[in-house]
Amino acid sequence: MKVDLNSDMGEGFGPYRLCDDEAMMDVVSSANIACGFHAGDADTMARMVRLARDRGVDIGAHPGLPDRQGFGRRELPFGADELRQQMLYQLGALTAIARAEGVRVSHVSFHAAMGNMVNRDAALAASMMAAIRTIDPELIVFGTAGSIIEAEAQAAGLKTLTLFLADRAYRADGTLVPRGQPGALVKDEASVRARVRRFLVEGTVAAIDGAIIPMRARSILVHSDTPGSLDLARLVRSEIEAAGGEVAPVSRILR
Amino acid sequence: MKVDLNSDMGEGFGPYRLCDDEAMMDVVSSANIACGFHAGDADTMARMVRLARDRGVDIGAHPGLPDRQGFGRRELPFGADELRQQMLYQLGALTAIARAEGVRVSHVSFHAAMGNMVNRDAALAASMMAAIRTIDPELIVFGTAGSIIEAEAQAAGLKTLTLFLADRAYRADGTLVPRGQPGALVKDEASVRARVRRFLVEGTVAAIDGAIIPMRARSILVHSDTPGSLDLARLVRSEIEAAGGEVAPVSRILR
Amino acid sequence: MKVDLNSDMGEGFGPYRLCDDEAMMDVVSSANIACGFHAGDADTMARMVRLARDRGVDIGAHPGLPDRQGFGRRELPFGADELRQQMLYQLGALTAIARAEGVRVSHVSFHAAMGNMVNRDAALAASMMAAIRTIDPELIVFGTAGSIIEAEAQAAGLKTLTLFLADRAYRADGTLVPRGQPGALVKDEASVRARVRRFLVEGTVAAIDGAIIPMRARSILVHSDTPGSLDLARLVRSEIEAAGGEVAPVSRILR
Amino acid sequence: MKVDLNSDMGEGFGPYRLCDDEAMMDVVSSANIACGFHAGDADTMARMVRLARDRGVDIGAHPGLPDRQGFGRRELPFGADELRQQMLYQLGALTAIARAEGVRVSHVSFHAAMGNMVNRDAALAASMMAAIRTIDPELIVFGTAGSIIEAEAQAAGLKTLTLFLADRAYRADGTLVPRGQPGALVKDEASVRARVRRFLVEGTVAAIDGAIIPMRARSILVHSDTPGSLDLARLVRSEIEAAGGEVAPVSRILR
Repeated sequence: MKVDLNSDMGEGFGPYRLCDDEAMMDVVSSANIACGFHAGDADTMARMVRLARDRGVDIGAHPGLPDRQGFGRRELPFGADELRQQMLYQLGALTAIARAEGVRVSHVSFHAAMGNMVNRDAALAASMMAAIRTIDPELIVFGTAGSIIEAEAQAAGLKTLTLFLADRAYRADGTLVPRGQPGALVKDEASVRARVRRFLVEGTVAAIDGAIIPMRARSILVHSDTPGSLDLARLVRSEIEAAGGEVAPVSRILR
Repeated sequence: MKVDLNSDMGEGFGPYRLCDDEAMMDVVSSANIACGFHAGDADTMARMVRLARDRGVDIGAHPGLPDRQGFGRRELPFGADELRQQMLYQLGALTAIARAEGVRVSHVSFHAAMGNMVNRDAALAASMMAAIRTIDPELIVFGTAGSIIEAEAQAAGLKTLTLFLADRAYRADGTLVPRGQPGALVKDEASVRARVRRFLVEGTVAAIDGAIIPMRARSILVHSDTPGSLDLARLVRSEIEAAGGEVAPVSRILR
Repeated sequence: MKVDLNSDMGEGFGPYRLCDDEAMMDVVSSANIACGFHAGDADTMARMVRLARDRGVDIGAHPGLPDRQGFGRRELPFGADELRQQMLYQLGALTAIARAEGVRVSHVSFHAAMGNMVNRDAALAASMMAAIRTIDPELIVFGTAGSIIEAEAQAAGLKTLTLFLADRAYRADGTLVPRGQPGALVKDEASVRARVRRFLVEGTVAAIDGAIIPMRARSILVHSDTPGSLDLARLVRSEIEAAGGEVAPVSRILR
Repeated sequence: MKVDLNSDMGEGFGPYRLCDDEAMMDVVSSANIACGFHAGDADTMARMVRLARDRGVDIGAHPGLPDRQGFGRRELPFGADELRQQMLYQLGALTAIARAEGVRVSHVSFHAAMGNMVNRDAALAASMMAAIRTIDPELIVFGTAGSIIEAEAQAAGLKTLTLFLADRAYRADGTLVPRGQPGALVKDEASVRARVRRFLVEGTVAAIDGAIIPMRARSILVHSDTPGSLDLARLVRSEIEAAGGEVAPVSRILR
């Protein structure tokens, strides 16, 4: 079974790094590259594209709100058309940098507050998906199962890739336990291993109340902006391979 | 005779405007749109694209250094690859915003310090042109006659459009009298009219020392960031039409 | 009768200007200087301080949210302590620049969204006023009649100056008609003149429903970020003088 | 013997950290706090001030160029008055934030490119020192032995504190071996220990050519923006104490 392993990359700025991007790029199969609004800059984007290309890693745009200080995590009062243009601006910027390196952008994965705003507003999501389609109808949109993003991407004729978050607890209805609530983060190594294995073997996940629910994802997202994220990513990769799975970039999974 | 009339547009930011872009868009045939580094933002870019599209005005990228405070006029210590990625980032951003509005980017016109840095360094210029070519080999590069930008664009197989600056004095060797030197700016209306007429009718310009020199341009650039720029643009346009010329966008001139 | 005439100044940035600050400085008696967050920068602040000093104009800090693109008009999700530190940062920055020019900062006037956020939250306002007091207990706080800012400034032992907005309509309860509602802006010259005269002679204003209500202000605020603002300021000044009033800076009114 | 141990602090931004500021604040006696231009922001400055106050650590302004992306390390084309106003702005901002927490700013330590520009231009340095003096004539200026900063601060009547850089090699003339040259950085623990001990016991340092030269510093600067900086700071502190020295903030050394 092929499964994608992806992470947000290039989220440093100037002298700052959130993650050892070089090392992480050896572990993932798809990289969601920050596009200069919440993090990253043109130079870093080019570096990420080259690292990915040299390793056969797929690259995706990871657009966020123009808010470095808040790292794109604060919802800001932008209108629907402003958000659409901000997304297009970032997607276009990465597309050009990638093209000059001989690489295609394979996917789009919204960052933090921009993603939350899109996931709450079907009309905004539809507008975003229509915009993405004009750039490249082959672009794949990342989302969680049952989300507005997933539904609107499919309605617009775009392919989608459903994410499994191995280090986040789910509720019995398949939605994530919100950050800040008890048990929202799964931190111990054995639990993460067990969750990855169950997901791969049975296609299920144990919800926070113990219920076993289906998890129809084809990709595992590993956060890069937390301490230990690189070790976690390696653990997930080794567990995938131990279970007989193959880590493959999104473009090979959905072709 | 068809001649293009172009201006830098969308160079406002937030509450600020340098120019009445709506009115200017009725006068020019090609618009060089600021791409969010020295001026402009995603929202403004989309507004410019729509204004241009609705009037049949060609749109071009007007990339600059990431320096709002200095308006992209200060040379800053970026390396050649950083500059290349900054240009690609901006060109890609505009390309995406334009595509979502159903419009092609027709040309690239470098802004201020970025242009000066490229025009001084043939290797950098060659790298820039190769990058532009990967985005779209039909992109037209704007430059002044005999410039490094013009030469390297042509060497890369790109089409070029040579600019005549109606409100700037030339030296007998065909180069511009630098800003700040006496007589560098041609301000009175009658002189600008006479220069436009001579350029259109004879294909020449009177240099600052009185010499009549050839001016092989196909486009007139009117600055938008000076008081009275809108009136100047209208004057140039009326003079072109009075001389029996036709104001036409760059894509129609070079096809 | 002495009355202060004040305006927001130095709200340009880089190549941009909202107002002819030099000309406006000849008209007002107190200048509220942008402090680099919503507009302005260190260089512009020093220029404003020198212009004010040379004309005997009082200078005040005009702190706003860190949001150039939104010009400090968008409410952003900052906590109370963040807002307090942002205000202190800006007030301190102006204080230092002024001191090096031999000038005292006389007052504080909150800008747009920062002012709205403070005016809605008595605890935040109290925290702001306590902070202002630690910088200089002689600082005068500008506010509208009956506002939380006014009340909390006085509760903190700070002097306050009440503003009359000659170009904004009031409701019968003394509050402003919100921008965007019909009649909120008073635009014609004769009406502004009549309002200034009534305010000066009778200490009243005609509310939007015709009721004549008391207006206990000692200062008239003229916006600088609208077209025609300089003419409006001159009109107000001439009307004050025609009514036998004296335009005097806040420090001379409240001493 | 009392010796100060200082480090640059609060140089993170948004989600980013260069150093564990909390832990470092337990080791140093004086903290040079980034003021929001090359790094830091109002919120971080307040946090640093509180950490320092609670530990009896002196606080100083660490002003830099307005260049987050370049971390203030790139020399940028600002004029002398612009630089002066930028420094005043930052010093004033920290002064206000500190005052509201009941703390005085004890010193000024220039960051990177701003320091280099000041150290190369005696007229600029004199202008900077005159400006610092207007803010508080008791402010202490940090500099290296024999530098223009040190000379001009003293000429302006300001106290100075001379820095010893324990992890940087010196030339026989007492100047630093520039970064990038072989041996510029002293990395091994034993060497740093030996250098600290020699400095404390003999008041000398072994230059890169082996010559023993006098080192008349009263303070040791430990960089915080390199991996292992916290361990290095602890090592230096333990060595000072092992040699019978006392780590004391600058205000206690120079009073």
